[in-house]
Amino acid sequence: MQTVRVALGPRSYPIHIGSGLLRRADLVVPALPRRRAAIVTNTTVARLHLEPLAAALAAAGVACVRIVVPDGEDHKDWATLDTVFDALLEHRCDRQTAIVALGGGVVGDLAGFAAATYQRGVPFVQVPTTLLAQVDSSVGGKTAINHARGKNMVGAFHQPLVVLADTDTLATLPDRELRAGLAEVIKHGAIRDAGLFAWLEANLEPLLGRDPEALAHVVKRSVEIKAEVVAADEREAGERALLNFGHTFGHAIEAGLGYGSWLHGEAVGAGMAMAADLSARLGLLDGASVDRLRRVLARAGLPVAGPRLDADRYVELMAIDKKARGGRTPFILLERLGAAVIRSDVAPEAVRATLDACTES
Amino acid sequence: MQTVRVALGPRSYPIHIGSGLLRRADLVVPALPRRRAAIVTNTTVARLHLEPLAAALAAAGVACVRIVVPDGEDHKDWATLDTVFDALLEHRCDRQTAIVALGGGVVGDLAGFAAATYQRGVPFVQVPTTLLAQVDSSVGGKTAINHARGKNMVGAFHQPLVVLADTDTLATLPDRELRAGLAEVIKHGAIRDAGLFAWLEANLEPLLGRDPEALAHVVKRSVEIKAEVVAADEREAGERALLNFGHTFGHAIEAGLGYGSWLHGEAVGAGMAMAADLSARLGLLDGASVDRLRRVLARAGLPVAGPRLDADRYVELMAIDKKARGGRTPFILLERLGAAVIRSDVAPEAVRATLDACTES
Repeated sequence: MQTVRVALGPRSYPIHIGSGLLRRADLVVPALPRRRAAIVTNTTVARLHLEPLAAALAAAGVACVRIVVPDGEDHKDWATLDTVFDALLEHRCDRQTAIVALGGGVVGDLAGFAAATYQRGVPFVQVPTTLLAQVDSSVGGKTAINHARGKNMVGAFHQPLVVLADTDTLATLPDRELRAGLAEVIKHGAIRDAGLFAWLEANLEPLLGRDPEALAHVVKRSVEIKAEVVAADEREAGERALLNFGHTFGHAIEAGLGYGSWLHGEAVGAGMAMAADLSARLGLLDGASVDRLRRVLARAGLPVAGPRLDADRYVELMAIDKKARGGRTPFILLERLGAAVIRSDVAPEAVRATLDACTES
Repeated sequence: MQTVRVALGPRSYPIHIGSGLLRRADLVVPALPRRRAAIVTNTTVARLHLEPLAAALAAAGVACVRIVVPDGEDHKDWATLDTVFDALLEHRCDRQTAIVALGGGVVGDLAGFAAATYQRGVPFVQVPTTLLAQVDSSVGGKTAINHARGKNMVGAFHQPLVVLADTDTLATLPDRELRAGLAEVIKHGAIRDAGLFAWLEANLEPLLGRDPEALAHVVKRSVEIKAEVVAADEREAGERALLNFGHTFGHAIEAGLGYGSWLHGEAVGAGMAMAADLSARLGLLDGASVDRLRRVLARAGLPVAGPRLDADRYVELMAIDKKARGGRTPFILLERLGAAVIRSDVAPEAVRATLDACTES
């Protein structure tokens, strides 16, 4: 087991990474105010991982309520959240009952927002079971639900007390989701760590083959990178925005196609290729680096072009994205592999040229 | 104009109290990150106060979106909140757009929760227009909506940047609401300030006659008391719970009758009489003090007994109240007028005796 500490002053917390952690209630119990928990998970993950976790917590004396929601991004909405509140109230969960998110990003966002707002905030524990959730949503405390008009439009910052990233859970992850998770790992290399990027170029096959050591390495390195960025900027006022590399285009893709059509990581994969193209058009990034990024995305089985939506629709969806400030859409761009910048003065013509060049024909 | 500062470190903010403040955009603008605001109010308050506020902000160069929701506690729910999110998104409000709550406690709670969660949190300004909102919800950053299973079950702590308590708005307040607001003022005296309590006994008639100086005095003194308590305990871990004096019984009354049947302040009035009775039964408070509290409540036109609900129903509703810890209902009790304590070991028989003695026959 390895541990990365996210340094956020009084809200600091550890992320434990390794094999067999689902059964390590001893890593969770000391963080809880009381031995009471409500595990929130979805139908798919419940079948695979709910009982081992619940049994371990129960054996440690933690009274557990189980709340199982339907699987899928289209359930990351108020209606599902309300069923979680309903169950918490029905079981008389109080302000000292920890909410434990067991699952991928959708469960983490939904359960995290429940924890942020149930009775104005209760303790929160994350047990991410997808690569995406382990490398991305386990750090930073972002929680949210979707709104009909936009993704993650309603949410809160709510840090967990502890995170268990059990790499064993990645063994049962569908291939498509593993690949989608790699998009965020590639992103971390692209924006911050040329060494990680080169490591991915050299080790993509063992990763896709689910070599446990390779997986543990990218989870740890990703978490370290994200933790550094988040520690410097908890509320996303500045540097943290760099983590949105690929996400402005990516969110537009997800919203334009309807949530759930492409996986988030797939949309971010295409979004990164598009943002790299835009970076090159603006003279920030050299063509060889654009090619390296596209190649590693393609080898990871990720799309390197967006779907063919109307360009006006892309522009409109990007403008409504929550990172927009005063109507001007900022873009996260690359200066080189390993270094990102934010630019709010991108000419609309350059964006249109990228949309022309980097969407499916 | 008088100003009370709520001391919460980086989240500190001023509450300005006085006449004509609705037009004092100069008190708001310096606190805003950008000159953009969305005013959230209800149909009743909109008719009385929306245009003066919006005109003053517009004159100061602030672009204003107006969002008007239906009046009433039964609209403090997800459905109404969602219409607020819809309007914010439709008008492309971004993370730098301040949400301004113009109205009473319901509008403040609802708009405040919108500000806490829209795009994971945006700037918030409060312009409370009822006595209750000025003396109570203007301090402490509590925001919430109701859930079918309980009042304020979903919410967040979100501090405003600045509060304008314009005492002129109290001139148009219905009598019943003025009296309901006085319940919280009486509460502040009862739990913390024997001097304020005695002042109320001596000055209740000018207050009910809406003497501007008397109103400004109780708003200022109430805000000072609540600000002291909240500054010592922002997240309601300890001392802040004392502000819930009368609220355990009060919330049960509101939930038992259905929200909106009694005003919150009316339920708290009866709840305080009940909590004082319980305090006396437990040997904490002398009978003369119970009588003084009941008398001032009655003179303020507030109920001093709860409605005739089944005792089991009261107990059940109190147990589900969010202040319950692990199934045990804590009560805020008085040791004397001006001093409150929290007790989690109250015998059920004593509670039943109070319910027998202090509900309408």
